[in-house]
Amino acid sequence: MTRPILHGYFRSSTSIRTRMALNLKGIEYDQVTHHLRKGEQKDEAYLKVNPQGLVPALVWTDGQVIPQSMAIMEFLDEVVPQPPLLPADAGGRARVRSLTQMICCDIHPLNNMRVLKAIGTRFGADDEATAAWFRYWVAETFRPLEQMLAHSDQTGRFCHGDEITMADLALVSQIINNRRFDVPMAAYPTLQRIADACLEVPAIERALPQHQPDAE
Amino acid sequence: MTRPILHGYFRSSTSIRTRMALNLKGIEYDQVTHHLRKGEQKDEAYLKVNPQGLVPALVWTDGQVIPQSMAIMEFLDEVVPQPPLLPADAGGRARVRSLTQMICCDIHPLNNMRVLKAIGTRFGADDEATAAWFRYWVAETFRPLEQMLAHSDQTGRFCHGDEITMADLALVSQIINNRRFDVPMAAYPTLQRIADACLEVPAIERALPQHQPDAE
Repeated sequence: MTRPILHGYFRSSTSIRTRMALNLKGIEYDQVTHHLRKGEQKDEAYLKVNPQGLVPALVWTDGQVIPQSMAIMEFLDEVVPQPPLLPADAGGRARVRSLTQMICCDIHPLNNMRVLKAIGTRFGADDEATAAWFRYWVAETFRPLEQMLAHSDQTGRFCHGDEITMADLALVSQIINNRRFDVPMAAYPTLQRIADACLEVPAIERALPQHQPDAE
Repeated sequence: MTRPILHGYFRSSTSIRTRMALNLKGIEYDQVTHHLRKGEQKDEAYLKVNPQGLVPALVWTDGQVIPQSMAIMEFLDEVVPQPPLLPADAGGRARVRSLTQMICCDIHPLNNMRVLKAIGTRFGADDEATAAWFRYWVAETFRPLEQMLAHSDQTGRFCHGDEITMADLALVSQIINNRRFDVPMAAYPTLQRIADACLEVPAIERALPQHQPDAE
């Protein structure tokens, strides 16, 4: 049988999330890596796969190309339902999707490499200004996220109860990404506790950047 | 019965999407508006509803607060299944979610008011530089989006076949938002055609900024 292919990059937090989802589902997959700093995601061959020229993109076993990390996680959850990445009830699913999107829409898109490059090119942001930008958008979301998770009785060992959901994958990937800019975590004990719990799960640990074929 | 409450702002494209979804589902709702230019979304009372201090947030009939526009659309599609905002098959659902997220993750988060303010405050971006930033991120996604929609036999009257999906709501909201910065649309005939088709639908038309209670 054809194995799915994940187009990604070892250090990309959106690639990390999707690797974690694939591992949790027990799906064997091949990786094709695109060195983002060298701009390989804009190579002609890859643009034929994903015209947006971004990673990740999942090529499923039937040949369908699925870009966008949250769409990939939702797809995997539909085609391989166990273990679920969303709770069963609509209210719980909404809560998990909201938490996930707080990170995937309100932190990552502002802090990925193309945007950090753009503020350098357009506005002359130096290393310090770039790090300040990164940390600012993390804090803008981590503050309310900490509050929401710390004060909800729906929070358990993980973001939603005691089972891993896509919110946890978004959270732990972001926290790994934060290390590049030394984001202080002292104000977010709940987020840190959940990330630590996630990292004890072998399927999640195996998805970390340092274990990937393109790790530097 | 308690009616759901949508916290929003007439001109916010994320609020527009969720109003369209509510209207398409035939759900009667009340609006509470927060004047984003005046910073009302950071008022203490609203932070108790949504600690993130962003719009939209939906307060459902049972009191659950759901922030994040895509989470709201997914929730509405689960609790009021007709008419569906996603196709029935996993592959189609993945395609629609990918298209939706190309807009909701890769355009809007970079171009919303808090970010346009931030590039002004941090980097001194003037009106012209701000408009250039806005148009750049629209073009970075609209170019591949046009290509993907124009060359797929899954595209119909709307982004995915002949029924409206959440991808259409994201697209038409973005195109309305673009008007503020005179984004040229000549290179995107398919996107414009789909947006025009959407605007013929009364439930969508009623969600436009000019018909809202807080319209200026």
